[in-house]
Amino acid sequence: MQGKTIQQLTLGESASTAKTISETDVYLFAGITGDLNPAHVNQEYAQATRFGGRIAHGMLSAGLISAVIGMQLPGPGTIYMGQDLKFLAPVKIGDTVTATVTVRELDLERNRVTLETVCENQSGQKLVVGQALVMAPTE
Amino acid sequence: MQGKTIQQLTLGESASTAKTISETDVYLFAGITGDLNPAHVNQEYAQATRFGGRIAHGMLSAGLISAVIGMQLPGPGTIYMGQDLKFLAPVKIGDTVTATVTVRELDLERNRVTLETVCENQSGQKLVVGQALVMAPTE
Amino acid sequence: MQGKTIQQLTLGESASTAKTISETDVYLFAGITGDLNPAHVNQEYAQATRFGGRIAHGMLSAGLISAVIGMQLPGPGTIYMGQDLKFLAPVKIGDTVTATVTVRELDLERNRVTLETVCENQSGQKLVVGQALVMAPTE
Amino acid sequence: MQGKTIQQLTLGESASTAKTISETDVYLFAGITGDLNPAHVNQEYAQATRFGGRIAHGMLSAGLISAVIGMQLPGPGTIYMGQDLKFLAPVKIGDTVTATVTVRELDLERNRVTLETVCENQSGQKLVVGQALVMAPTE
Repeated sequence: MQGKTIQQLTLGESASTAKTISETDVYLFAGITGDLNPAHVNQEYAQATRFGGRIAHGMLSAGLISAVIGMQLPGPGTIYMGQDLKFLAPVKIGDTVTATVTVRELDLERNRVTLETVCENQSGQKLVVGQALVMAPTE
Repeated sequence: MQGKTIQQLTLGESASTAKTISETDVYLFAGITGDLNPAHVNQEYAQATRFGGRIAHGMLSAGLISAVIGMQLPGPGTIYMGQDLKFLAPVKIGDTVTATVTVRELDLERNRVTLETVCENQSGQKLVVGQALVMAPTE
Repeated sequence: MQGKTIQQLTLGESASTAKTISETDVYLFAGITGDLNPAHVNQEYAQATRFGGRIAHGMLSAGLISAVIGMQLPGPGTIYMGQDLKFLAPVKIGDTVTATVTVRELDLERNRVTLETVCENQSGQKLVVGQALVMAPTE
Repeated sequence: MQGKTIQQLTLGESASTAKTISETDVYLFAGITGDLNPAHVNQEYAQATRFGGRIAHGMLSAGLISAVIGMQLPGPGTIYMGQDLKFLAPVKIGDTVTATVTVRELDLERNRVTLETVCENQSGQKLVVGQALVMAPTE
Protein backbone atom coordinates (compact mmCIF):
# COMPACT_ATOMS: atom_id res chain seq x y z
CA MET A 1 0.00 0.00 0.00
CA GLN A 2 2.91 2.37 -0.62
CA GLY A 3 3.34 4.47 -3.75
CA LYS A 4 6.56 5.05 -5.68
CA THR A 5 9.61 6.59 -4.06
CA ILE A 6 11.29 9.41 -5.93
CA GLN A 7 13.92 6.95 -7.15
CA GLN A 8 11.20 4.92 -8.81
CA LEU A 9 9.71 7.90 -10.69
CA THR A 10 10.80 8.96 -14.17
CA LEU A 11 10.38 12.27 -15.94
CA GLY A 12 7.43 12.22 -18.33
CA GLU A 13 5.73 9.31 -16.57
CA SER A 14 1.99 9.86 -16.27
CA ALA A 15 -1.21 8.40 -14.84
CA SER A 16 -4.85 9.32 -15.16
CA THR A 17 -8.38 8.63 -14.05
CA ALA A 18 -11.70 9.50 -15.64
CA LYS A 19 -15.24 9.93 -14.37
CA THR A 20 -18.57 11.04 -15.76
CA ILE A 21 -19.69 13.77 -13.40
CA SER A 22 -23.23 13.07 -12.26
CA GLU A 23 -25.84 15.29 -10.70
CA THR A 24 -25.29 13.20 -7.56
CA ASP A 25 -21.60 14.11 -7.50
CA VAL A 26 -22.41 17.80 -7.76
CA TYR A 27 -25.17 17.69 -5.15
CA LEU A 28 -23.10 15.76 -2.62
CA PHE A 29 -20.12 18.03 -3.22
CA ALA A 30 -22.40 21.01 -2.58
CA GLY A 31 -23.57 19.45 0.65
CA ILE A 32 -20.09 18.64 1.92
CA THR A 33 -18.59 22.02 1.21
CA GLY A 34 -21.66 24.16 1.73
CA ASP A 35 -21.22 25.56 -1.77
CA LEU A 36 -24.86 25.55 -2.84
CA ASN A 37 -24.19 28.35 -5.29
CA PRO A 38 -27.16 28.50 -7.68
CA ALA A 39 -24.81 27.83 -10.61
CA HIS A 40 -24.45 24.32 -9.14
CA VAL A 41 -27.88 23.47 -7.70
CA ASN A 42 -30.49 25.76 -9.28
CA GLN A 43 -31.33 24.81 -12.87
CA GLU A 44 -33.68 27.78 -13.39
CA TYR A 45 -30.88 30.19 -12.47
CA ALA A 46 -28.18 28.24 -14.24
CA GLN A 47 -29.87 27.99 -17.59
CA ALA A 48 -29.95 31.79 -17.77
CA THR A 49 -26.17 32.01 -17.27
CA ARG A 50 -23.50 31.88 -19.95
CA PHE A 51 -23.14 28.15 -19.25
CA GLY A 52 -26.74 27.25 -20.04
CA GLY A 53 -27.17 24.84 -17.14
CA ARG A 54 -25.83 23.62 -13.84
CA ILE A 55 -22.06 23.15 -13.70
CA ALA A 56 -19.85 21.17 -11.36
CA HIS A 57 -17.66 22.81 -8.76
CA GLY A 58 -14.13 23.47 -10.05
CA MET A 59 -12.77 21.87 -6.91
CA LEU A 60 -14.54 18.64 -7.83
CA SER A 61 -12.26 18.37 -10.88
CA ALA A 62 -9.34 19.29 -8.65
CA GLY A 63 -10.40 16.38 -6.46
CA LEU A 64 -9.89 14.02 -9.41
CA ILE A 65 -6.32 15.32 -9.74
CA SER A 66 -5.73 14.68 -6.08
CA ALA A 67 -7.12 11.17 -6.55
CA VAL A 68 -4.55 10.36 -9.25
CA ILE A 69 -1.74 11.72 -7.07
CA GLY A 70 -2.86 9.92 -3.93
CA MET A 71 -3.83 6.64 -5.54
CA GLN A 72 -1.41 6.23 -8.44
CA LEU A 73 1.39 8.71 -9.03
CA PRO A 74 3.27 8.71 -6.74
CA GLY A 75 0.43 6.96 -4.79
CA PRO A 76 -0.16 6.15 -1.12
CA GLY A 77 2.28 7.81 1.25
CA THR A 78 2.61 10.95 -0.91
CA ILE A 79 2.52 14.27 0.98
CA TYR A 80 0.58 16.88 -1.01
CA MET A 81 2.41 20.21 -0.54
CA GLY A 82 0.80 22.49 -3.08
CA GLN A 83 -1.41 22.80 -6.12
CA ASP A 84 -1.90 25.61 -8.63
CA LEU A 85 -5.11 25.55 -10.64
CA LYS A 86 -6.34 27.54 -13.61
CA PHE A 87 -10.01 26.99 -14.41
CA LEU A 88 -10.38 27.29 -18.20
CA ALA A 89 -13.82 25.87 -18.92
CA PRO A 90 -16.78 24.59 -16.91
CA VAL A 91 -17.80 20.99 -16.36
CA LYS A 92 -21.44 20.35 -17.13
CA ILE A 93 -23.39 17.59 -15.44
CA GLY A 94 -22.88 14.53 -17.64
CA ASP A 95 -19.41 15.50 -18.88
CA THR A 96 -16.67 12.93 -18.56
CA VAL A 97 -13.57 14.41 -16.98
CA THR A 98 -10.13 12.83 -17.39
CA ALA A 99 -7.51 13.98 -14.89
CA THR A 100 -3.91 13.36 -15.95
CA VAL A 101 -0.79 13.82 -13.87
CA THR A 102 2.70 13.86 -15.43
CA VAL A 103 6.09 13.95 -13.69
CA ARG A 104 7.92 17.15 -14.73
CA GLU A 105 10.66 17.71 -12.15
CA LEU A 106 12.44 15.48 -9.66
CA ASP A 107 14.46 17.07 -6.84
CA LEU A 108 16.12 13.97 -5.41
CA GLU A 109 17.97 15.84 -2.70
CA ARG A 110 14.90 17.39 -1.12
CA ASN A 111 12.48 14.65 -2.26
CA ARG A 112 10.25 17.08 -4.11
CA VAL A 113 8.29 16.10 -7.22
CA THR A 114 6.65 18.61 -9.55
CA LEU A 115 3.69 17.24 -11.45
CA GLU A 116 1.83 18.75 -14.37
CA THR A 117 -1.90 18.36 -13.78
CA VAL A 118 -4.59 18.58 -16.47
CA CYS A 119 -8.32 17.87 -16.58
CA GLU A 120 -9.98 17.46 -19.97
CA ASN A 121 -13.53 16.67 -21.02
CA GLN A 122 -14.76 14.06 -23.49
CA SER A 123 -14.01 16.43 -26.41
CA GLY A 124 -10.40 16.90 -25.35
CA GLN A 125 -11.13 20.46 -24.17
CA LYS A 126 -8.85 21.52 -21.34
CA LEU A 127 -10.88 22.35 -18.23
CA VAL A 128 -8.29 22.79 -15.50
CA VAL A 129 -4.51 23.10 -15.90
CA GLY A 130 -1.82 23.57 -13.30
CA GLN A 131 0.86 21.88 -11.32
CA ALA A 132 1.29 20.08 -8.06
CA LEU A 133 4.23 19.87 -5.67
CA VAL A 134 4.48 16.70 -3.62
CA MET A 135 6.88 14.70 -1.47
CA ALA A 136 7.11 11.15 -2.74
CA PRO A 137 6.67 8.31 -0.25
CA THR A 138 9.82 7.23 1.49
CA GLU A 139 9.73 3.60 2.09
CA MET B 1 -29.22 36.09 -6.20
CA GLN B 2 -26.21 38.04 -7.51
CA GLY B 3 -23.02 38.65 -5.56
CA LYS B 4 -21.06 41.87 -5.35
CA THR B 5 -19.74 43.63 -8.42
CA ILE B 6 -16.11 44.76 -8.36
CA GLN B 7 -17.33 48.29 -7.62
CA GLN B 8 -19.01 47.02 -4.45
CA LEU B 9 -15.88 45.30 -3.16
CA THR B 10 -13.31 46.97 -0.92
CA LEU B 11 -9.71 46.06 -0.22
CA GLY B 12 -9.37 44.17 3.03
CA GLU B 13 -13.00 43.05 3.08
CA SER B 14 -13.35 39.44 4.17
CA ALA B 15 -15.86 36.62 4.68
CA SER B 16 -15.63 33.17 6.15
CA THR B 17 -17.40 29.89 6.83
CA ALA B 18 -16.65 27.11 9.31
CA LYS B 19 -17.45 23.42 9.53
CA THR B 20 -16.49 20.50 11.72
CA ILE B 21 -15.20 17.94 9.25
CA SER B 22 -16.96 14.64 9.86
CA GLU B 23 -16.09 11.11 8.84
CA THR B 24 -19.11 11.37 6.54
CA ASP B 25 -17.61 14.35 4.76
CA VAL B 26 -14.36 12.50 4.18
CA TYR B 27 -16.02 9.28 3.02
CA LEU B 28 -18.41 11.01 0.63
CA PHE B 29 -15.57 13.15 -0.72
CA ALA B 30 -13.57 9.96 -1.28
CA GLY B 31 -16.48 8.43 -3.14
CA ILE B 32 -17.07 11.46 -5.35
CA THR B 33 -13.46 11.95 -6.35
CA GLY B 34 -12.27 8.36 -6.21
CA ASP B 35 -9.51 9.40 -3.82
CA LEU B 36 -9.77 6.44 -1.47
CA ASN B 37 -6.16 6.84 -0.44
CA PRO B 38 -5.69 4.84 2.78
CA ALA B 39 -4.64 8.02 4.58
CA HIS B 40 -8.28 9.07 4.22
CA VAL B 41 -10.30 5.88 4.61
CA ASN B 42 -8.14 3.21 6.28
CA GLN B 43 -7.75 3.77 9.99
CA GLU B 44 -5.34 0.84 10.47
CA TYR B 45 -3.02 2.30 7.86
CA ALA B 46 -3.53 5.89 8.92
CA GLN B 47 -2.72 5.44 12.57
CA ALA B 48 0.71 4.18 11.60
CA THR B 49 1.46 7.35 9.60
CA ARG B 50 2.96 10.58 10.92
CA PHE B 51 -0.60 11.91 11.28
CA GLY B 52 -1.77 9.22 13.68
CA GLY B 53 -5.19 8.78 12.10
CA ARG B 54 -7.34 9.40 9.05
CA ILE B 55 -7.11 12.88 7.57
CA ALA B 56 -9.42 14.81 5.28
CA HIS B 57 -8.56 15.47 1.65
CA GLY B 58 -6.79 18.78 1.13
CA MET B 59 -9.23 19.55 -1.64
CA LEU B 60 -12.10 19.32 0.85
CA SER B 61 -10.69 22.34 2.67
CA ALA B 62 -10.21 23.98 -0.73
CA GLY B 63 -13.91 23.31 -1.30
CA LEU B 64 -14.75 25.41 1.76
CA ILE B 65 -12.75 28.27 0.22
CA SER B 66 -14.71 27.91 -2.99
CA ALA B 67 -17.94 27.94 -0.94
CA VAL B 68 -17.06 31.31 0.59
CA ILE B 69 -16.17 32.71 -2.83
CA GLY B 70 -19.29 31.38 -4.55
CA MET B 71 -21.76 32.07 -1.76
CA GLN B 72 -20.48 35.22 -0.08
CA LEU B 73 -17.48 37.09 -1.48
CA PRO B 74 -18.02 38.05 -4.20
CA GLY B 75 -20.95 35.54 -4.23
CA PRO B 76 -23.26 34.16 -6.94
CA GLY B 77 -22.23 35.07 -10.46
CA THR B 78 -18.50 34.98 -9.69
CA ILE B 79 -16.28 33.26 -12.29
CA TYR B 80 -13.51 31.28 -10.62
CA MET B 81 -10.36 31.67 -12.76
CA GLY B 82 -7.60 30.27 -10.61
CA GLN B 83 -6.53 29.10 -7.20
CA ASP B 84 -3.09 28.50 -5.70
CA LEU B 85 -2.94 26.27 -2.65
CA LYS B 86 -0.18 25.42 -0.19
CA PHE B 87 -1.06 22.58 2.17
CA LEU B 88 0.66 23.29 5.48
CA ALA B 89 -0.99 20.91 7.94
CA PRO B 90 -3.51 18.08 7.79
CA VAL B 91 -7.16 18.18 8.84
CA LYS B 92 -8.10 15.35 11.15
CA ILE B 93 -11.64 14.00 11.31
CA GLY B 94 -13.38 16.10 13.95
CA ASP B 95 -11.34 19.26 13.33
CA THR B 96 -13.29 22.45 12.75
CA VAL B 97 -12.03 24.26 9.66
CA THR B 98 -12.62 27.96 9.12
CA ALA B 99 -12.09 29.18 5.56
CA THR B 100 -11.52 32.91 5.19
CA VAL B 101 -11.34 34.93 1.99
CA THR B 102 -9.98 38.50 1.92
CA VAL B 103 -9.96 40.97 -0.97
CA ARG B 104 -6.32 41.86 -1.76
CA GLU B 105 -6.33 43.37 -5.29
CA LEU B 106 -8.99 44.94 -7.49
CA ASP B 107 -8.30 45.38 -11.21
CA LEU B 108 -11.33 47.43 -12.18
CA GLU B 109 -10.39 47.67 -15.83
CA ARG B 110 -10.23 43.93 -16.43
CA ASN B 111 -12.70 43.00 -13.64
CA ARG B 112 -10.20 40.77 -11.90
CA VAL B 113 -10.21 40.30 -8.11
CA THR B 114 -7.33 38.70 -6.21
CA LEU B 115 -8.37 37.08 -2.95
CA GLU B 116 -6.20 35.80 -0.15
CA THR B 117 -7.51 32.42 0.97
CA VAL B 118 -6.74 30.76 4.31
CA CYS B 119 -8.05 27.72 6.14
CA GLU B 120 -7.37 27.39 9.86
CA ASN B 121 -8.34 24.80 12.45
CA GLN B 122 -9.91 25.30 15.88
CA SER B 123 -6.47 26.08 17.38
CA GLY B 124 -5.77 28.82 14.85
CA GLN B 125 -3.22 26.67 13.04
CA LYS B 126 -2.97 27.49 9.34
CA LEU B 127 -3.87 24.47 7.23
CA VAL B 128 -4.07 25.81 3.69
CA VAL B 129 -2.92 29.19 2.41
CA GLY B 130 -3.01 30.64 -1.06
CA GLN B 131 -4.82 33.01 -3.34
CA ALA B 132 -7.67 32.98 -5.79
CA LEU B 133 -8.25 34.95 -8.97
CA VAL B 134 -11.88 35.60 -9.86
CA MET B 135 -14.08 37.76 -12.08
CA ALA B 136 -16.68 39.49 -9.97
CA PRO B 137 -20.32 39.27 -11.06
CA THR B 138 -21.37 41.94 -13.52
CA GLU B 139 -24.87 42.86 -12.83
CA MET C 1 -48.62 -1.36 -1.53
CA GLN C 2 -51.67 0.63 -0.39
CA GLY C 3 -52.20 1.92 3.12
CA LYS C 4 -55.42 1.85 5.09
CA THR C 5 -58.57 3.54 3.88
CA ILE C 6 -60.42 5.75 6.32
CA GLN C 7 -62.88 2.91 6.92
CA GLN C 8 -60.02 0.72 8.09
CA LEU C 9 -58.73 3.27 10.59
CA THR C 10 -59.87 3.43 14.23
CA LEU C 11 -59.64 6.26 16.74
CA GLY C 12 -56.66 5.85 19.06
CA GLU C 13 -54.81 3.54 16.70
CA SER C 14 -51.13 4.36 16.56
CA ALA C 15 -47.84 3.46 14.86
CA SER C 16 -44.27 4.51 15.41
CA THR C 17 -40.71 4.30 14.20
CA ALA C 18 -37.43 4.99 15.97
CA LYS C 19 -33.92 5.91 14.86
CA THR C 20 -30.68 6.88 16.51
CA ILE C 21 -29.75 10.14 14.85
CA SER C 22 -26.17 9.93 13.61
CA GLU C 23 -23.70 12.61 12.63
CA THR C 24 -24.14 11.27 9.10
CA ASP C 25 -27.88 11.94 9.21
CA VAL C 26 -27.29 15.51 10.32
CA TYR C 27 -24.55 16.18 7.77
CA LEU C 28 -26.51 14.75 4.86
CA PHE C 29 -29.63 16.64 5.94
CA ALA C 30 -27.54 19.83 6.02
CA GLY C 31 -26.29 19.12 2.52
CA ILE C 32 -29.73 18.41 1.07
CA THR C 33 -31.44 21.44 2.54
CA GLY C 34 -28.49 23.84 2.56
CA ASP C 35 -29.01 24.36 6.28
CA LEU C 36 -25.37 24.32 7.36
CA ASN C 37 -26.19 26.45 10.37
CA PRO C 38 -23.22 26.23 12.76
CA ALA C 39 -25.50 24.74 15.44
CA HIS C 40 -25.65 21.67 13.18
CA VAL C 41 -22.18 21.38 11.62
CA ASN C 42 -19.70 23.40 13.70
CA GLN C 43 -18.78 21.71 16.96
CA GLU C 44 -16.62 24.63 18.18
CA TYR C 45 -19.56 26.97 17.82
CA ALA C 46 -22.14 24.51 19.10
CA GLN C 47 -20.40 23.59 22.31
CA ALA C 48 -20.56 27.23 23.37
CA THR C 49 -24.34 27.34 22.90
CA ARG C 50 -26.99 26.42 25.46
CA PHE C 51 -27.14 22.95 23.89
CA GLY C 52 -23.47 22.11 24.49
CA GLY C 53 -22.92 20.47 21.12
CA ARG C 54 -24.20 19.97 17.60
CA ILE C 55 -27.93 19.31 17.32
CA ALA C 56 -30.04 17.79 14.58
CA HIS C 57 -32.34 19.85 12.40
CA GLY C 58 -35.88 19.98 13.79
CA MET C 59 -37.18 19.06 10.35
CA LEU C 60 -35.22 15.83 10.52
CA SER C 61 -37.45 14.72 13.40
CA ALA C 62 -40.43 15.95 11.41
CA GLY C 63 -39.21 13.69 8.62
CA LEU C 64 -39.55 10.70 10.94
CA ILE C 65 -43.20 11.67 11.54
CA SER C 66 -43.77 11.86 7.82
CA ALA C 67 -42.17 8.43 7.49
CA VAL C 68 -44.67 6.87 9.89
CA ILE C 69 -47.56 8.51 8.07
CA GLY C 70 -46.36 7.55 4.60
CA MET C 71 -45.17 4.06 5.42
CA GLN C 72 -47.54 2.84 8.13
CA LEU C 73 -50.49 4.93 9.24
CA PRO C 74 -52.37 5.35 7.02
CA GLY C 75 -49.45 4.26 4.73
CA PRO C 76 -48.83 4.38 0.97
CA GLY C 77 -51.37 6.39 -0.96
CA THR C 78 -51.89 8.91 1.85
CA ILE C 79 -51.99 12.58 0.80
CA TYR C 80 -50.23 14.78 3.34
CA MET C 81 -52.23 18.01 3.65
CA GLY C 82 -50.77 19.74 6.66
CA GLN C 83 -48.57 19.47 9.70
CA ASP C 84 -48.23 21.64 12.80
CA LEU C 85 -45.02 21.32 14.75
CA LYS C 86 -43.89 22.64 18.12
CA PHE C 87 -40.21 22.14 18.81
CA LEU C 88 -39.82 21.59 22.56
CA ALA C 89 -36.30 20.24 22.97
CA PRO C 90 -33.28 19.66 20.75
CA VAL C 91 -32.04 16.34 19.39
CA LYS C 92 -28.36 15.78 20.02
CA ILE C 93 -26.26 13.60 17.76
CA GLY C 94 -26.57 10.09 19.17
CA ASP C 95 -30.07 10.55 20.58
CA THR C 96 -32.66 7.94 19.64
CA VAL C 97 -35.86 9.55 18.41
CA THR C 98 -39.18 7.71 18.42
CA ALA C 99 -41.90 9.24 16.25
CA THR C 100 -45.43 8.17 17.09
CA VAL C 101 -48.59 8.91 15.15
CA THR C 102 -52.06 8.38 16.65
CA VAL C 103 -55.47 8.67 14.96
CA ARG C 104 -57.47 11.43 16.70
CA GLU C 105 -60.27 12.40 14.29
CA LEU C 106 -61.93 10.70 11.34
CA ASP C 107 -64.04 12.78 8.94
CA LEU C 108 -65.53 10.01 6.82
CA GLU C 109 -67.51 12.32 4.59
CA ARG C 110 -64.54 14.38 3.45
CA ASN C 111 -61.96 11.60 3.93
CA ARG C 112 -59.86 13.67 6.31
CA VAL C 113 -57.85 12.13 9.14
CA THR C 114 -56.36 14.13 12.00
CA LEU C 115 -53.31 12.53 13.56
CA GLU C 116 -51.51 13.44 16.76
CA THR C 117 -47.78 13.42 16.14
CA VAL C 118 -45.09 13.18 18.81
CA CYS C 119 -41.32 12.69 18.80
CA GLU C 120 -39.61 11.60 22.01
CA ASN C 121 -36.02 10.80 22.88
CA GLN C 122 -34.60 7.77 24.70
CA SER C 123 -35.48 9.35 28.07
CA GLY C 124 -39.13 9.86 27.13
CA GLN C 125 -38.61 13.61 26.80
CA LYS C 126 -40.97 15.17 24.27
CA LEU C 127 -39.03 16.81 21.45
CA VAL C 128 -41.67 17.70 18.89
CA VAL C 129 -45.43 17.68 19.31
CA GLY C 130 -48.17 18.58 16.89
CA GLN C 131 -50.76 17.23 14.53
CA ALA C 132 -51.11 16.22 10.93
CA LEU C 133 -54.04 16.38 8.54
CA VAL C 134 -54.11 13.76 5.80
CA MET C 135 -56.38 12.17 3.23
CA ALA C 136 -56.37 8.42 3.65
CA PRO C 137 -55.76 6.26 0.59
CA THR C 138 -58.85 5.40 -1.41
CA GLU C 139 -58.51 2.02 -2.79
CA MET D 1 -21.65 34.05 13.10
CA GLN D 2 -24.76 35.46 14.79
CA GLY D 3 -27.98 36.29 13.02
CA LYS D 4 -30.14 39.36 13.55
CA THR D 5 -31.55 40.26 16.94
CA ILE D 6 -35.22 41.15 17.11
CA GLN D 7 -34.24 44.84 17.21
CA GLN D 8 -32.50 44.43 13.86
CA LEU D 9 -35.53 42.87 12.16
CA THR D 10 -38.19 44.86 10.35
CA LEU D 11 -41.74 43.90 9.44
CA GLY D 12 -41.99 42.80 5.82
CA GLU D 13 -38.30 41.96 5.57
CA SER D 14 -37.73 38.71 3.67
CA ALA D 15 -35.06 36.26 2.54
CA SER D 16 -35.10 33.20 0.30
CA THR D 17 -33.13 30.31 -1.11
CA ALA D 18 -33.73 28.14 -4.17
CA LYS D 19 -32.70 24.66 -5.24
CA THR D 20 -33.50 22.28 -8.04
CA ILE D 21 -34.63 19.12 -6.25
CA SER D 22 -32.67 16.18 -7.60
CA GLU D 23 -33.33 12.45 -7.43
CA THR D 24 -30.30 12.37 -5.12
CA ASP D 25 -31.97 14.76 -2.70
CA VAL D 26 -35.09 12.62 -2.58
CA TYR D 27 -33.23 9.34 -2.19
CA LEU D 28 -30.94 10.62 0.56
CA PHE D 29 -33.89 12.19 2.34
CA ALA D 30 -35.69 8.84 2.13
CA GLY D 31 -32.67 7.11 3.60
CA ILE D 32 -32.24 9.57 6.46
CA THR D 33 -35.87 9.60 7.52
CA GLY D 34 -36.84 6.07 6.54
CA ASP D 35 -39.67 7.47 4.44
CA LEU D 36 -39.25 5.14 1.48
CA ASN D 37 -42.88 5.56 0.54
CA PRO D 38 -43.26 4.31 -3.05
CA ALA D 39 -44.51 7.76 -4.08
CA HIS D 40 -40.94 8.95 -3.48
CA VAL D 41 -38.74 6.04 -4.55
CA ASN D 42 -40.75 3.70 -6.80
CA GLN D 43 -41.19 5.08 -10.29
CA GLU D 44 -43.44 2.19 -11.45
CA TYR D 45 -45.81 2.86 -8.58
CA ALA D 46 -45.52 6.64 -8.79
CA GLN D 47 -46.31 6.98 -12.47
CA ALA D 48 -49.68 5.34 -11.84
CA THR D 49 -50.60 7.91 -9.17
CA ARG D 50 -52.30 11.24 -9.72
CA PHE D 51 -48.82 12.86 -9.75
CA GLY D 52 -47.51 10.85 -12.70
CA GLY D 53 -44.07 10.26 -11.20
CA ARG D 54 -41.94 10.29 -8.09
CA ILE D 55 -42.37 13.32 -5.86
CA ALA D 56 -40.18 14.81 -3.16
CA HIS D 57 -41.05 14.57 0.51
CA GLY D 58 -43.01 17.58 1.76
CA MET D 59 -40.60 17.84 4.67
CA LEU D 60 -37.74 18.34 2.21
CA SER D 61 -39.35 21.61 1.13
CA ALA D 62 -39.90 22.39 4.79
CA GLY D 63 -36.17 21.83 5.23
CA LEU D 64 -35.47 24.63 2.75
CA ILE D 65 -37.63 26.94 4.90
CA SER D 66 -35.63 25.95 7.95
CA ALA D 67 -32.42 26.66 6.00
CA VAL D 68 -33.52 30.23 5.28
CA ILE D 69 -34.46 30.75 8.93
CA GLY D 70 -31.26 29.24 10.30
CA MET D 71 -28.85 30.71 7.79
CA GLN D 72 -30.35 34.07 6.88
CA LEU D 73 -33.44 35.38 8.64
CA PRO D 74 -32.94 35.74 11.55
CA GLY D 75 -29.87 33.47 10.99
CA PRO D 76 -27.45 31.64 13.32
CA GLY D 77 -28.52 31.64 16.95
CA THR D 78 -32.24 31.50 16.15
CA ILE D 79 -34.33 29.09 18.26
CA TYR D 80 -36.98 27.39 16.14
CA MET D 81 -40.13 27.08 18.28
CA GLY D 82 -42.83 26.05 15.86
CA GLN D 83 -43.84 25.64 12.25
CA ASP D 84 -47.24 25.20 10.62
CA LEU D 85 -47.28 23.73 7.14
CA LYS D 86 -49.99 23.29 4.53
CA PHE D 87 -48.96 21.14 1.59
CA LEU D 88 -50.74 22.48 -1.49
CA ALA D 89 -48.97 20.86 -4.41
CA PRO D 90 -46.28 18.22 -4.89
CA VAL D 91 -42.65 18.78 -5.86
CA LYS D 92 -41.54 16.61 -8.76
CA ILE D 93 -37.95 15.55 -9.20
CA GLY D 94 -36.35 18.32 -11.26
CA ASP D 95 -38.56 21.11 -9.95
CA THR D 96 -36.82 24.21 -8.63
CA VAL D 97 -38.17 25.17 -5.22
CA THR D 98 -37.81 28.68 -3.84
CA ALA D 99 -38.38 29.01 -0.08
CA THR D 100 -39.17 32.51 1.13
CA VAL D 101 -39.45 33.72 4.70
CA THR D 102 -41.01 37.08 5.59
CA VAL D 103 -41.18 38.82 8.97
CA ARG D 104 -44.86 39.28 9.93
CA GLU D 105 -44.93 39.93 13.69
CA LEU D 106 -42.37 41.11 16.22
CA ASP D 107 -43.06 40.62 19.94
CA LEU D 108 -40.17 42.59 21.39
CA GLU D 109 -41.10 41.90 24.99
CA ARG D 110 -41.01 38.12 24.70
CA ASN D 111 -38.48 38.03 21.81
CA ARG D 112 -40.86 36.12 19.56
CA VAL D 113 -40.85 36.52 15.77
CA THR D 114 -43.64 35.24 13.53
CA LEU D 115 -42.51 34.49 10.00
CA GLU D 116 -44.63 33.76 6.94
CA THR D 117 -43.12 30.81 5.08
CA VAL D 118 -43.80 29.92 1.45
CA CYS D 119 -42.32 27.46 -1.04
CA GLU D 120 -43.01 27.97 -4.73
CA ASN D 121 -41.91 26.11 -7.84
CA GLN D 122 -40.38 27.50 -11.05
CA SER D 123 -43.87 28.39 -12.35
CA GLY D 124 -44.71 30.44 -9.26
CA GLN D 125 -47.12 27.76 -8.03
CA LYS D 126 -47.41 27.69 -4.24
CA LEU D 127 -46.31 24.32 -2.87
CA VAL D 128 -46.16 24.82 0.88
CA VAL D 129 -47.53 27.74 2.90
CA GLY D 130 -47.49 28.35 6.60
CA GLN D 131 -45.83 30.23 9.39
CA ALA D 132 -42.95 29.82 11.78
CA LEU D 133 -42.48 31.02 15.34
CA VAL D 134 -38.89 31.68 16.41
CA MET D 135 -36.81 33.37 19.08
CA ALA D 136 -34.33 35.72 17.46
CA PRO D 137 -30.68 35.48 18.52
CA THR D 138 -29.78 37.54 21.52
CA GLU D 139 -26.32 38.77 21.19
